[in-house]
Amino acid sequence: MALIVQKYGGTSVGTPERIKAVAEKVMQYHGAGHQIVVVVSAMSGETDRLLALAGSVSKRPNPRELDVLLATGEQATIALLSMALAERNCSARSYTGAQVHIRTDSAHNKARIQDIDAQRVGADLAAGRVVVVAGFQGVDESGNITTLGRGGSDTTAVALAAALKADECQIFTDVDGVYTTDPRVVPEARRLDRITFEEMLEMASLGSKVLQIRAVEFAGKYNVPLRVLSSFEEGEGTLITYEEEGMEQALISGIAFNRDEAKLTVLGVPDQPGVAHLILGPIADANIEVDMIVQNIATDGKTTDFTFTVHRNDYDRALEILHRIAGELGAREVAGDAKIVKISLVGVGMRSHAGIASTMFEALAKEGINIRMISTSEIKISVVVDEKYLELGVRALHEAFQLDQATAV
Amino acid sequence: MALIVQKYGGTSVGTPERIKAVAEKVMQYHGAGHQIVVVVSAMSGETDRLLALAGSVSKRPNPRELDVLLATGEQATIALLSMALAERNCSARSYTGAQVHIRTDSAHNKARIQDIDAQRVGADLAAGRVVVVAGFQGVDESGNITTLGRGGSDTTAVALAAALKADECQIFTDVDGVYTTDPRVVPEARRLDRITFEEMLEMASLGSKVLQIRAVEFAGKYNVPLRVLSSFEEGEGTLITYEEEGMEQALISGIAFNRDEAKLTVLGVPDQPGVAHLILGPIADANIEVDMIVQNIATDGKTTDFTFTVHRNDYDRALEILHRIAGELGAREVAGDAKIVKISLVGVGMRSHAGIASTMFEALAKEGINIRMISTSEIKISVVVDEKYLELGVRALHEAFQLDQATAV
Repeated sequence: MALIVQKYGGTSVGTPERIKAVAEKVMQYHGAGHQIVVVVSAMSGETDRLLALAGSVSKRPNPRELDVLLATGEQATIALLSMALAERNCSARSYTGAQVHIRTDSAHNKARIQDIDAQRVGADLAAGRVVVVAGFQGVDESGNITTLGRGGSDTTAVALAAALKADECQIFTDVDGVYTTDPRVVPEARRLDRITFEEMLEMASLGSKVLQIRAVEFAGKYNVPLRVLSSFEEGEGTLITYEEEGMEQALISGIAFNRDEAKLTVLGVPDQPGVAHLILGPIADANIEVDMIVQNIATDGKTTDFTFTVHRNDYDRALEILHRIAGELGAREVAGDAKIVKISLVGVGMRSHAGIASTMFEALAKEGINIRMISTSEIKISVVVDEKYLELGVRALHEAFQLDQATAV
Repeated sequence: MALIVQKYGGTSVGTPERIKAVAEKVMQYHGAGHQIVVVVSAMSGETDRLLALAGSVSKRPNPRELDVLLATGEQATIALLSMALAERNCSARSYTGAQVHIRTDSAHNKARIQDIDAQRVGADLAAGRVVVVAGFQGVDESGNITTLGRGGSDTTAVALAAALKADECQIFTDVDGVYTTDPRVVPEARRLDRITFEEMLEMASLGSKVLQIRAVEFAGKYNVPLRVLSSFEEGEGTLITYEEEGMEQALISGIAFNRDEAKLTVLGVPDQPGVAHLILGPIADANIEVDMIVQNIATDGKTTDFTFTVHRNDYDRALEILHRIAGELGAREVAGDAKIVKISLVGVGMRSHAGIASTMFEALAKEGINIRMISTSEIKISVVVDEKYLELGVRALHEAFQLDQATAV
């Protein structure tokens, strides 16, 4: 018997029929002897409907009141799912975020969970009940309703799992797990049975949008085993945990990519302290987020070339800023390219293996793909290449590291 | 400066446009220097939408969970109204029933208010804020969400007014006050400036559905002056209070009527103790509510005729029961009529005036209307007549008591 927290997203509870299907699935697990806490989102489309209502009475809805309004979405779902369970003679009880004391800070619309009092849930579980909790919402110190921002239901589930010391937190989505790469790009992409938190964070932040980054961080911090699986199909999904001692570790877990990048370079700036700040300060002031940063000493030994990437939507504004400050910097030239993509190899196994990078570069070279930027971390190697090479590059790497096969060594 | 609790029903907040109009109205009162607490219902149609959703996942929705679901309706309205107020630079704050501790018993779907902790509302009022509270909902001792049943928002408003010792509780509806009778039947019907709680109770229970009976009882019990007025038109409405010493009191306040009655008679039962119970016991056991009851000694001095009225929907069942028990009772005959209506004169003034009844019977006789039953209370005289005489009878009485004129003596 295990204590399991399950989370079902908006698509999984999008219609009365789907809510009934979720009830059946919950009862399977409950019938197998597990203690079950279910976290649900608003029915898909509901949050947008509420936002439209808010927009029709106010141009800039008051943030506190917007939370009061949005919180009704999940509240409706918990009631409907609990009814569907009761209809099947499964004893269930619903709770809003406030009712189970999901205490957050007071940052309306993007609050952060600070504390959960899991006593009430624990008592219901002990009595054999399924507990259904509204995701995405909480309550601040003064009793005001707060919401965690989009995707916050994942975080609710993980936080509840941590507070209850659950054996597993299962996130049900419309995909059946985490893949070695996007199956739409590489048909041979394989579902991973397991992946580490660190790898998942790199995969998620690089554009594999299966889970909210905050939820993964939270799960890692509190060591909550996280499983991603499909609401609509049977299957084991992908388990996200810490690396286990003696566990046969794949060299590379997956290949992530990001199409939304753009690259900017300041050429020939004097190689002296503070130059990075002089360039990135005005960029940060304009609220532009910077992703990769690479700096090289130029061949003359006196000047340097400074390159970074931003989201493609911010490219024009960033270029304008660089042109404006190029004079003060004494830069020779400003260049940019919005038609680039980033491809990354992710795997904790690469820590202890030499030669990963050279295998990667060799595979790309064989296909005639020119690498524009390289950046590495302990468990990731990222390269920037021309947009047109994205699919070719990802497929070449997937094959080179034999990711279609169960356990590459 | 007065403390006013205002209640706006579902039609008054039925669209974003109407919510904005309510915001304007609230600001008029607030701008005039009054402290304002607003109680709102769910947007019209919303409760039915939620009930349909519940029906689509469960044949008999779990009562606790139905309350969790239905409570979202008012929660959405409080948020939208508060946003609309904030948009107009009027400081406002919304609260659910749970947030202002509207403590009820645990009778889900028809809970009764037990206690209100008005501290939080009081603090907001002192800070100059408009407070917007969700009607119809509360929270039980264990923190479960409850609802008060249809029309419960009126009760919320009155209970809040009592707890806050408000100067007045204003119920905004789609009519502009309480009338001497239904203007659809008597075009000369006149809006009353004031009416007593007792009269209002008689009027309400006799089918003038302006206010919830429970709300009127509550207001009477805690002596909260209640005003009914229109959301859509300007006007003073009708004030419901206790009779004031020295106040010029109308003889008759109004004429109520009820089309849903049916009459049953047991003829020639032995006139002995316990016969009423023998007849009405089985009726009560069948969950049929009895309205008027009249018993007469027959001319032979040994038997009696026993007559009562029930809701027309219960007529067939009641008749069947009487036929079944007639033998045991030793009754001569059982008779019934489902085509009758009840017309009532209501007025605290009749207490101290003789001759009201005879004036009433005379007016009906003049029109050739035969009276089938008569029943009186201290401030009411009810007669049962044939259905076809309803309009004629009401109009004749309205004229006989000169109710179209401001102050009849």
